[in-house]
Amino acid sequence: MTEKGGGAPAARAVLQQCLQATLQVKPADEGSEAQFVQIDRGLVMYICFFKGATDDILPKMVSTLLNLRLSESDSGKLVSILELPGSLLIVPQATLGGKAKGRAMQYHNNISKEDGLRLYSSFVALCEKELMAAAAAPARTGAEVTVKHGTYGNRQVLKLDTNGPYTHLMEF
Amino acid sequence: MTEKGGGAPAARAVLQQCLQATLQVKPADEGSEAQFVQIDRGLVMYICFFKGATDDILPKMVSTLLNLRLSESDSGKLVSILELPGSLLIVPQATLGGKAKGRAMQYHNNISKEDGLRLYSSFVALCEKELMAAAAAPARTGAEVTVKHGTYGNRQVLKLDTNGPYTHLMEF
Repeated sequence: MTEKGGGAPAARAVLQQCLQATLQVKPADEGSEAQFVQIDRGLVMYICFFKGATDDILPKMVSTLLNLRLSESDSGKLVSILELPGSLLIVPQATLGGKAKGRAMQYHNNISKEDGLRLYSSFVALCEKELMAAAAAPARTGAEVTVKHGTYGNRQVLKLDTNGPYTHLMEF
Repeated sequence: MTEKGGGAPAARAVLQQCLQATLQVKPADEGSEAQFVQIDRGLVMYICFFKGATDDILPKMVSTLLNLRLSESDSGKLVSILELPGSLLIVPQATLGGKAKGRAMQYHNNISKEDGLRLYSSFVALCEKELMAAAAAPARTGAEVTVKHGTYGNRQVLKLDTNGPYTHLMEF
């Protein structure tokens, strides 16, 4: 669960494999309908950064998450999202940083909204880069890889269809 | 996140509020179709017990999880599942105990299957008891409360529809 020795984590991720997932990226308003992104088979990553998190953790975090064997292949073998090959839906999820105080959840350890947005954007960009590189590798020609992601700070209206979410927690 | 000071947790829970959730409780076989349970608005609890967990942790765990304000009421106010009033879907999720070793997840800290089943069954029974008691309270007459749960050891084929899962992690 924790990749760091001892200290408080800088980031937390919850991971669920899916058959399909749909996420709202823009709520409906007077002028337009709500907008959604969708992935088929792949991995949903809920991501939260804590106070003190910096860009330094991102390369290892992305590499670990994309290479961990968290998905089931057609043959039932566990493979990484890079090997599946599958799609990735990244969901900013600040609530993951919550800590119970009495009956309420508090988020005092969460990163500031501004820094969180910056790290989240870099995280998404790095995932896109790695997945695209993997898809372009000679052995993979033609593999379909998609990275979709929610918009930071918005409500993450999510629909998830799984064949067993196989929920994992990782901290960095 | 952790309710214990320092040491390794005895149990881990991931919590997501939902508008509707459907979980397979019996896979299809030659003689019969797959069976599912379903809840409408409420809370999905993914539960995992670690080695060393005992019945002693259950009363506090159940009371904490049922009373934490993790759900949004119609007015947008955060309320507990007891206050919502809402339904509860309990999902055994041993993968939550996973720890990365290289690219593979390992589950060496998970409780034995036998002890896990016993604790899971007691956890479900306690949740049912508390939710039913809350529903029967004079101020709540008529409130619809349902507890549904997955079958331990099976694949947890899950479909989730949310208005924002509002994912939280709790350890005990």
